[in-house]
Amino acid sequence: MTDYAADLAAIRAAHAVIAPHVHRTPVMTSEAVDRRAGKRLFFKCENLQRGGAFKARGATHAVFTLDDEVARRGIVTHSSGNHAQAIAIAARARGVDAHIVMPSDAPRVKRAAVEGYGARVIVCEPTQRARHETAARVVEETGGTLIPPFDHPAVIAGQGTLALELVAQVEELDAVIVPVGGGGLIAGVTLALRELAPGVRVFGAEPAGADDAARSKASGARVTEQTPDTIADGLKTTLGELTWPIVRDLVEEILVVPDVLTIGAMRLIFERMKLVVEPSGAVPAAAALSRAFAAKDVERVGVVISGGNVDLDHLPWTRRRA
Amino acid sequence: MTDYAADLAAIRAAHAVIAPHVHRTPVMTSEAVDRRAGKRLFFKCENLQRGGAFKARGATHAVFTLDDEVARRGIVTHSSGNHAQAIAIAARARGVDAHIVMPSDAPRVKRAAVEGYGARVIVCEPTQRARHETAARVVEETGGTLIPPFDHPAVIAGQGTLALELVAQVEELDAVIVPVGGGGLIAGVTLALRELAPGVRVFGAEPAGADDAARSKASGARVTEQTPDTIADGLKTTLGELTWPIVRDLVEEILVVPDVLTIGAMRLIFERMKLVVEPSGAVPAAAALSRAFAAKDVERVGVVISGGNVDLDHLPWTRRRA
Repeated sequence: MTDYAADLAAIRAAHAVIAPHVHRTPVMTSEAVDRRAGKRLFFKCENLQRGGAFKARGATHAVFTLDDEVARRGIVTHSSGNHAQAIAIAARARGVDAHIVMPSDAPRVKRAAVEGYGARVIVCEPTQRARHETAARVVEETGGTLIPPFDHPAVIAGQGTLALELVAQVEELDAVIVPVGGGGLIAGVTLALRELAPGVRVFGAEPAGADDAARSKASGARVTEQTPDTIADGLKTTLGELTWPIVRDLVEEILVVPDVLTIGAMRLIFERMKLVVEPSGAVPAAAALSRAFAAKDVERVGVVISGGNVDLDHLPWTRRRA
Repeated sequence: MTDYAADLAAIRAAHAVIAPHVHRTPVMTSEAVDRRAGKRLFFKCENLQRGGAFKARGATHAVFTLDDEVARRGIVTHSSGNHAQAIAIAARARGVDAHIVMPSDAPRVKRAAVEGYGARVIVCEPTQRARHETAARVVEETGGTLIPPFDHPAVIAGQGTLALELVAQVEELDAVIVPVGGGGLIAGVTLALRELAPGVRVFGAEPAGADDAARSKASGARVTEQTPDTIADGLKTTLGELTWPIVRDLVEEILVVPDVLTIGAMRLIFERMKLVVEPSGAVPAAAALSRAFAAKDVERVGVVISGGNVDLDHLPWTRRRA
């Protein structure tokens, strides 16, 4: 089982490492939502995770498995989103510095959150290239360790811990639906389930405006560039070198969801489940409620609510449409 | 213990009756909120209760303890809020009719929710008098039983079941903070705790714009009229004949909260706990975060989040202020 980035043993070891630092998030259900889906949905609530997203799992694992001497030189990453916050939290828990490269157009509130956890923010131009170059410079200056947001074995193993909990919390799942951005979460979950519960079918869920994973699977070749156009800001990235083979070989299908359905699912989760969810976090729920998924021969479905960090001043149903 | 509307035995019996029909709601915590409060807060999440509010407890108890023959003639109530929905749900579960008198200015969404649970809605003029008269007429016409929203022994005993769960879920509480409208919830909780955990101090929380309970306690005489001016639409009512003696004799203090603090607490619960809470449901949290409460010599505090039925199109921080 060493042909992919992690295996069940690595994911179990990751769980032992991170358990003191992250939450075992609850699974919630809603009869009203089940009626709409025509299935029984079990929502794994990573919006209730530390830092408001599943990213705490992988970041904490990666930070806590560094050697003491390496860790002491600090952690570097580039992210404008939930991974930045997760690294800041994990670094503080380990008592080491975090240097977060953020694009100059990142929301002030996200920057404030990262700084609130004691991390140093380095602002760069809002391009992929500037982010990578700035991060590389910070690594050189500080001697810190770069922990990327998804394409990293320790991060993938950490994200996979979600599946260990879900299988222990819900009996006899037929399927899971996991959001797909860079693919760290679905890679970890898939690698855990293939050994732990191989009968559980794994579906990815992706916004139509950033459907690189679906197109990669369709063509058999990894799509590495796209111009994303979606409200799901956490899922704009393309798959990585480590995550792609797992998605290609082991994920049954990528369900593609238009933003209008994501906004509807988001509002349904607010209204009926009383949970705050961010757009990216509602994409799997939107897939579960879609007509295409209703036709699948599965009854008991684990649905990941991956995060809840949403700008409450600009909820999509109150925002003026462009 | 028969001098008040209920006692621990009655509340335990109520719990046995309603347990198959309502949720045992979770208790949630937040380090970020605890830091602001300077105390350890344990939030009892009745926003995750059936129908989105604690009202399901009392309504279900009252509906399910009617004799079969009486129940068969149906249930009548007047409410524009969470009690209406709770009665509709409970009546459907028992398989009997529900007739809900609602004022003509009730939000369409609330009327739709009640009708969605299969209840019949009778619209009346938006005055207290019209509501009572219309309900009385419906009782006469149908032979149904009127179940009022708070001033009723079975309703009070049902609401008290919240305290049984909270005490089982959280060890060594020093205090609880409970919202006060008509007083059904605080009455039930107080009567449960005085026998079950007499060391737990009971505080009420009330909006400054509907502070009849605080004024009643200050003067020793029940205030029965007020012109409420608050965003906390669930707490506008004055105390009832049955609930007042309990608040007068057994509740330590009513904490009075201006709406601006309620809105802040509501947003904090959305942002940091990822929970949808209605204004009334955030009043106890606002009290827990107040300077006045910080000075209290209590460390471990149960805080009721009483409901989550809020109009998502008009959240108070996006709404234009009057």
